[in-house]
Amino acid sequence: MKAGIINIGSELTSGLVCNSNASHIGKILRLFSLDVGFILTLPDRVDTIVKALKQVCNRVQLVVITGGLGPTHDDCTKEALAKFTKRKLSFHKETAELVEKKLLERGVRISNERFLGAYQPEGMEILKNPIGTAPGLRFSHRGTEFFVFPGVPVEMEVMAEQYLIPYLEKVSRERRTIKVIRTFQLPESKINELLEPVIEEFPLLDVAFLPRHISNDIVINAPSEEKISLDRFVEEAKRALGEKIYGYDEDTMESTVGKLLRDKNLTLSVAESCTGGLVSNRITNIPGSSEYFMGGIVSYDNSVKINILKVKAETIEKYGAVSEQTAVEMAEGVRKVLGTDIGVSTTGIAGPSGGTKDKPVGTVWVGYSDREKAFAKKFIVNYNRELNKLIFSQLCLDTLRVELLREKGEGK
Amino acid sequence: MKAGIINIGSELTSGLVCNSNASHIGKILRLFSLDVGFILTLPDRVDTIVKALKQVCNRVQLVVITGGLGPTHDDCTKEALAKFTKRKLSFHKETAELVEKKLLERGVRISNERFLGAYQPEGMEILKNPIGTAPGLRFSHRGTEFFVFPGVPVEMEVMAEQYLIPYLEKVSRERRTIKVIRTFQLPESKINELLEPVIEEFPLLDVAFLPRHISNDIVINAPSEEKISLDRFVEEAKRALGEKIYGYDEDTMESTVGKLLRDKNLTLSVAESCTGGLVSNRITNIPGSSEYFMGGIVSYDNSVKINILKVKAETIEKYGAVSEQTAVEMAEGVRKVLGTDIGVSTTGIAGPSGGTKDKPVGTVWVGYSDREKAFAKKFIVNYNRELNKLIFSQLCLDTLRVELLREKGEGK
Repeated sequence: MKAGIINIGSELTSGLVCNSNASHIGKILRLFSLDVGFILTLPDRVDTIVKALKQVCNRVQLVVITGGLGPTHDDCTKEALAKFTKRKLSFHKETAELVEKKLLERGVRISNERFLGAYQPEGMEILKNPIGTAPGLRFSHRGTEFFVFPGVPVEMEVMAEQYLIPYLEKVSRERRTIKVIRTFQLPESKINELLEPVIEEFPLLDVAFLPRHISNDIVINAPSEEKISLDRFVEEAKRALGEKIYGYDEDTMESTVGKLLRDKNLTLSVAESCTGGLVSNRITNIPGSSEYFMGGIVSYDNSVKINILKVKAETIEKYGAVSEQTAVEMAEGVRKVLGTDIGVSTTGIAGPSGGTKDKPVGTVWVGYSDREKAFAKKFIVNYNRELNKLIFSQLCLDTLRVELLREKGEGK
Repeated sequence: MKAGIINIGSELTSGLVCNSNASHIGKILRLFSLDVGFILTLPDRVDTIVKALKQVCNRVQLVVITGGLGPTHDDCTKEALAKFTKRKLSFHKETAELVEKKLLERGVRISNERFLGAYQPEGMEILKNPIGTAPGLRFSHRGTEFFVFPGVPVEMEVMAEQYLIPYLEKVSRERRTIKVIRTFQLPESKINELLEPVIEEFPLLDVAFLPRHISNDIVINAPSEEKISLDRFVEEAKRALGEKIYGYDEDTMESTVGKLLRDKNLTLSVAESCTGGLVSNRITNIPGSSEYFMGGIVSYDNSVKINILKVKAETIEKYGAVSEQTAVEMAEGVRKVLGTDIGVSTTGIAGPSGGTKDKPVGTVWVGYSDREKAFAKKFIVNYNRELNKLIFSQLCLDTLRVELLREKGEGK
């Protein structure tokens, strides 16, 4: 079964907003083995939309459209759909009442413009929007099934779950299994080399590499009947890649670290200089992180390193703030001051300025301390400031992860 | 002049990666007043690409293509372009040598597959890639001009600057000016109401609203000759929206706060509970923030609030960790402990669990303290955990910003 995605909005074609709706729908369609033949992004212009619909929709059996359903003057998806299917737009009382009710709840005065949102193409199924004011639509046209959702991502996501997924469960013959193996600190060429014999062993699995700055992922797409091969592939990949694998599927470095800390009943604190709070922020993105994360010190200024973290002034003077010694004392300091089992730290130069010949921009020391040992590791990366910070934070979390794998976990 | 963008890659159609290349190219084309009629995302499949090229390319004068130029077996853009333009693919010695050299520099063994990257459609202009190994292409076909860039974002960006922008400077008659006015804590309907008379006054300016969670932007697109109208529009918008405007164009809340702190010679520290380090992280995303940001305390556990920030245990016991009193004591505490002019704080419930009837998920208290005063403000938002954290951090920075506008700045 072939499908297409159409995202409508001039904010998309003019580059003001990145089209995350397309990725979301693409992921869902892929899970149900649908072959996405195109993603088409169009400006808010009736004629352009109608022309494009005529050209592309006969090539696929399913089209998912997002955007342009709202009540403002630039929203014209419904008008375009009415023209495309040769239907009339008519006032839809239920929608109007719903819009009015929702807007009154929010204390918004109702303008005439808002009521434009209440016109719907005749004979299409109106899909209730559980969050926002603009309903979705569903209809068939010349053998192609259409789902139309609002462009606001949270609304689109809820409605895709409520309407699109149940439809796909009915019509899609096979639901493919997609497995993602996530690695870090292993270049793509090395992964390729290590996995080559495994990939050759399982020719029915579709294996792709997805290299990114903080994760080199291996994506395996398997027909459901190849489930056993898929499991065996993952087992062999585990053997080949070992500790470099930090997670699977929706895992992140911070969720993996969180699981390890919880399993081993250990508490963590973080001292950050160059990452400026990003490590703590990522750790606390995980629900329930308050069970193992006690807190962090962002010691941006050296006075904070000395006064709060108890780093020795002589250490900073002698070795510099960006040094093995300072990183170790930061990790030890935060562990002791906050009374946790483990302390980790970062100190480095995120850039764009501040680098020297010996310590170029992109240099980072990651420190680790527990009751038995303390050490620091040096890494050098070189992108822009924000990307450097992100990679530094990943290196810090990964260093922690690898240590946790060795920890017996007699904490607390 | 009409343009189209085509992004090739199955990782895009299957939702594994968000199509940021499209936004980047879209932004450039918009700056030069080109009308982007479509963005088409296609899987790595020769026939699909050829068919789509035939359908859409006659509608526009310029097509920018990204992706699928690499040396691996799934990269098939060059093959598709050769078929589409009825040209042969032939071995291109210069490219081969370049690829070989770059790969050897990186210590990568050269496989036959890598050399596939050295085949090019005959008679097309080869665009050197200053970063990666895959060159770009440029050619004309039936009156349409084509630029083809690699899909790796940093490579695409550099090559667009080097090849596409000089071309656009030549062919585009007018370069439009785009001005963005950024506001926060003002709903779209209210902006609309306040700006309606201003918008009517300047009919030649194209004004659009771009509502997002942490910024409600007003985007004004003006022909170059309307520069004076644009300036006057911005002045009148300033009068109408006042302090709700936190910045323009590339400004962010953290860059605006940074400028104010620097101008007024004031130092800042941050105490974070529910935002978990995000406020500090955002502040330190600004280069040079070490001039005014001394550091932060992520007091996730109450023990950190009490031991480090010196929040009174009785305060937490009596009013709870999420309360006006605790937020004020956190802000005062961090200001005193870190010795800064100003301290701000956040304490709230990011969710998904932890809410009560009186303090539902999404409740946040933002605290502020300087030498003369201390206060806290309550806000309630309700999205998912990460979005709640982001909005909380924006509310904290915005509270700080508005106070800074009133500060005389006799700090340090």
